[in-house]
Amino acid sequence: MNNEVLIVGSLALDTVETPFGRVEEALGGAGVYAATAASLLAPVHLVGVIGDDFPQEALDNLTQRGVSLEGVEVIKGGKSFRWSGRYEYDMGEASTLDTQLNVFADFDPVLPEAARQCDFVFLANILPSLQLRVLEQVDQPRLTVCDTMNFWIENARDDLLEVLSRVEVAAMNDAELRQLTGQPNLARAAAEVLEMGPKYLIIKKGEYGASLVSCDRHFALPCYPLATVIDPTGAGDSFAGGFIGFLAWSGKVGDEQLRQALAIGTVTASACVEDFSVDELRRLTAEELYERFEALRGMVAFAEIPREDICTT
Amino acid sequence: MNNEVLIVGSLALDTVETPFGRVEEALGGAGVYAATAASLLAPVHLVGVIGDDFPQEALDNLTQRGVSLEGVEVIKGGKSFRWSGRYEYDMGEASTLDTQLNVFADFDPVLPEAARQCDFVFLANILPSLQLRVLEQVDQPRLTVCDTMNFWIENARDDLLEVLSRVEVAAMNDAELRQLTGQPNLARAAAEVLEMGPKYLIIKKGEYGASLVSCDRHFALPCYPLATVIDPTGAGDSFAGGFIGFLAWSGKVGDEQLRQALAIGTVTASACVEDFSVDELRRLTAEELYERFEALRGMVAFAEIPREDICTT
Repeated sequence: MNNEVLIVGSLALDTVETPFGRVEEALGGAGVYAATAASLLAPVHLVGVIGDDFPQEALDNLTQRGVSLEGVEVIKGGKSFRWSGRYEYDMGEASTLDTQLNVFADFDPVLPEAARQCDFVFLANILPSLQLRVLEQVDQPRLTVCDTMNFWIENARDDLLEVLSRVEVAAMNDAELRQLTGQPNLARAAAEVLEMGPKYLIIKKGEYGASLVSCDRHFALPCYPLATVIDPTGAGDSFAGGFIGFLAWSGKVGDEQLRQALAIGTVTASACVEDFSVDELRRLTAEELYERFEALRGMVAFAEIPREDICTT
Repeated sequence: MNNEVLIVGSLALDTVETPFGRVEEALGGAGVYAATAASLLAPVHLVGVIGDDFPQEALDNLTQRGVSLEGVEVIKGGKSFRWSGRYEYDMGEASTLDTQLNVFADFDPVLPEAARQCDFVFLANILPSLQLRVLEQVDQPRLTVCDTMNFWIENARDDLLEVLSRVEVAAMNDAELRQLTGQPNLARAAAEVLEMGPKYLIIKKGEYGASLVSCDRHFALPCYPLATVIDPTGAGDSFAGGFIGFLAWSGKVGDEQLRQALAIGTVTASACVEDFSVDELRRLTAEELYERFEALRGMVAFAEIPREDICTT
């Protein structure tokens, strides 16, 4: 029981354009977003790969936040992963303009001893066979969460199914859930994924919130409403980072904590999208996280009606 | 204070095709869906127009449910409004195959005395100038809710703005909200609509739930999850009917009741889509409505975290 978090995923330099501005080679990558988010609440071990062009400030900031970078391999003379995308006014899906895998193309996650011991593991969206490589190396995590994407559902389905059979929590968006199962009804699609192995499924619905489904429980939250959305990049990874960071912080993985974790993930993601890159996530304090958590709690609460009153209508 | 509901809207015969079947000339229309839903909880006065081809069974059923049809004009020799549509597998938007306004083309709502006295008014989606005609005739309702659609936003904008300036609650889906305001961010778009007059805005998000927004409060609910969705026709009108029926039942229109009403609307709509036409709405009992209401309450509930615990992390 160490209540620490292992995150395996990309460290990237993102060039992003939204109707509200543009950043070039800004800090990004699923691993960075998730680690920045989770480290607000728990010690984090990040595993990934970068070139020696990766900005030192970014690495220093992660270290200061309590993120161990022992598992981040630096390839001498290598170029870091770069992604470039654009969002239109509705801030829905990004159009990818360019992807340069660079050193990430040969990524082979090797876990330092401390990383293997983590109780909580988040496998960000990487090749499913690499997610399996991580699962082979971890000791005995109490909870493992995996993310994935449409490309792997189509092109690495067998490995992905193997991953799903080995994790406690699978996270995917509604489109991926429908694609994976071929089932348009989300409740049925969720039931099918739970048959594949995970005990819980997180359904990410972007601006419409998220659900946490198990075989006998359904928990759902709307999004935290924001008047200002600057850049949606990293929202899902911040969500996952907040989710797993909270569970590590709480040290418990019961129904109550998983529900709270979904709410923490929701409000963490809301901070992420309020600025480019991890800028707002870095500024986010536990105090602000708590305030939004409580605001969200108030936002979905409604009073009961005495049964006898309404049933005798 | 009579706590009765006035509903003005269409009575129609719908031919609907979904992946799960097809019905021909089945009972439909916004007025019928809303009245069937609201009458589970409160006395309803329905105002609309039909031809003498409208099935007597449909009228008898409404009457048995406590819906007064005094305000439903029957045009001798006239044909009732007919709509035909098809849903694809994702059960999103219907493709309209045919619309025959028939007697509805000359609809001019004339309210019987009892209808004018109603405390609660739902103006279903009809020509905004007709919604205004209704507002001129009602006495002093305590709460008026209006629905609308993309076609009127584009083609009858001035009248629609006049309606919005005169109602307490406006209901629209997220696409209509964006279309009306030209604002892609829903929180900002909602603020703009509240500037137009209504005290509350209901944002309907289909399978993603609904929000109730006022100038200083935000309440949001996910959809009630269903493994079986047979026909989404009438979901929004059942929602509105459940919403206003509950307020009339409760006799109060405070923040607490409006939140409960949104939840009742949500679960009423969930019953509507489980079968074609109003078949499931007719079967729905107050007991079942209560059970789903409580299930939804449990579905969004999560526990607080002691502030000092998380803020000293």
